[in-house]
Amino acid sequence: MLNQSEWFTEVNDNYGLAFSLKIKEKCTEIQSPFQSVAIYETTDFGYLMTIDDIIMLTSRDNFLYHEMLVHPALFTHPNPKNIAIIGGGDCGSLREALKHPVDSVIQIEIDEVVTQLAEKYFPELCESNHDPRAQLLFIDGIRWMQEAKDQSLDVIIVDSTDPLGPAVGLFNQAFYEQCHRVLKPNGILVQQSESPILHQSLQKDMREAMFQAGFPHLLTLPFPQPVYPSGWFSCTMASKLPSFSDFRRDTALLKKLNTQYYQFEVHEAGLHPVPFLKALER
Amino acid sequence: MLNQSEWFTEVNDNYGLAFSLKIKEKCTEIQSPFQSVAIYETTDFGYLMTIDDIIMLTSRDNFLYHEMLVHPALFTHPNPKNIAIIGGGDCGSLREALKHPVDSVIQIEIDEVVTQLAEKYFPELCESNHDPRAQLLFIDGIRWMQEAKDQSLDVIIVDSTDPLGPAVGLFNQAFYEQCHRVLKPNGILVQQSESPILHQSLQKDMREAMFQAGFPHLLTLPFPQPVYPSGWFSCTMASKLPSFSDFRRDTALLKKLNTQYYQFEVHEAGLHPVPFLKALER
Repeated sequence: MLNQSEWFTEVNDNYGLAFSLKIKEKCTEIQSPFQSVAIYETTDFGYLMTIDDIIMLTSRDNFLYHEMLVHPALFTHPNPKNIAIIGGGDCGSLREALKHPVDSVIQIEIDEVVTQLAEKYFPELCESNHDPRAQLLFIDGIRWMQEAKDQSLDVIIVDSTDPLGPAVGLFNQAFYEQCHRVLKPNGILVQQSESPILHQSLQKDMREAMFQAGFPHLLTLPFPQPVYPSGWFSCTMASKLPSFSDFRRDTALLKKLNTQYYQFEVHEAGLHPVPFLKALER
Repeated sequence: MLNQSEWFTEVNDNYGLAFSLKIKEKCTEIQSPFQSVAIYETTDFGYLMTIDDIIMLTSRDNFLYHEMLVHPALFTHPNPKNIAIIGGGDCGSLREALKHPVDSVIQIEIDEVVTQLAEKYFPELCESNHDPRAQLLFIDGIRWMQEAKDQSLDVIIVDSTDPLGPAVGLFNQAFYEQCHRVLKPNGILVQQSESPILHQSLQKDMREAMFQAGFPHLLTLPFPQPVYPSGWFSCTMASKLPSFSDFRRDTALLKKLNTQYYQFEVHEAGLHPVPFLKALER
């Protein structure tokens, strides 16, 4: 039995599993207008951020998620210049996106507390927050998207919590229709799409809603992510472009990005969903 | 707090994490001369086998491990005919190996109880146990290897528990030297090599011992495995052959194998270790 004072446990009762990280101490917990955001210091994974008792990220393994959410989309787009991140308050996706030669990245996070705590406990993820190309807004991303100009963005990155609480409106056709309107003709939307083994029904619904919203081309990329349920996670790209296979293999740029997991061969393999995941495709 | 009667929890205190599966009931527990083998029925992952309270496999996700332990090695070897599996008592690796047009697969499992329980609770993994090309021995694999003839095998698959208890002797140079002696000149050894993010020191030692035992070419392939610590696992191939890149892309055979995860693109990507894993290489 795990001693509750020494372990943080996320129970996924509906999926029959739970995951625990050993903690040295709880550093803080702040009740924002939207949710409860907590920080723990773990024994082996650095700092841990939770929102409403769900694991968001740790210092040790967040590179997997952030690199795979950002780089496949940015290397697929022929020339990404104007990017929006919906959610992403820990600023890890912002940092990865700004490694590319983009003109602007706007991050629209509803909860400023998330970013305040990231700046304190995950300063490495926030190192690009003052980049002149970055703009941080703390408002409702769904509303922001409704008000954004037609065809004004190249890439939209939806880096949200699970489809519960304030994030629920980020997982439906109405939101994807707004994204479609705001993206330029060769634009790409990418969103975290949960676990390939646990959340197949959610993925199927998400893909169907993206398709119905006008994105004819979809690609779900799996990747390891130890602290998320099942340790196996994914993102889904939705594109107006005819194909994902012509992504840019710009080795000079990739070397400069200094990634730990993303590389062309991982991206290339992701173009060919494994049989287990093919069932998702329409 | 997880109720102990409803959850099976594997605690990895040294690595600061724990993983739990929700159970309907404990079906059986048998103390063999070597270890304690238990079976649980889980709510969402089918049956679960544990050995000395460590998770071995579940019905739902073992295909990842078994396919990735067996097929990369068998597609790398130009013409695998005679195979030995050390450990592997659940018979999942045996089943995968026998999907290839091999002449013989000998499985040398020290503990017959493991196979007896697999036949009862994981019959799908044991469906090839009576294949005329299969031979099941229940003796010490280390000793068997010491007594095996020089250059008599094409592929050796070490499908063992963690390097504790009876498996500890499967993770050292003396054992790898015996494997090297028993393999033919183009032979391949493959072994499970734990988590890429948790067990880097173990992997480094294993690779060094394989190299010192005479295998000049090593390749560690990562893959998802939800019920193992960190959800990210790996196998390491050690070869007498000059390169891993010329593996057989035999589409007709692969189609026949009916895999759920292994496919050429996964194998191909594995030839290029991601930056995070490159540090392991000598």
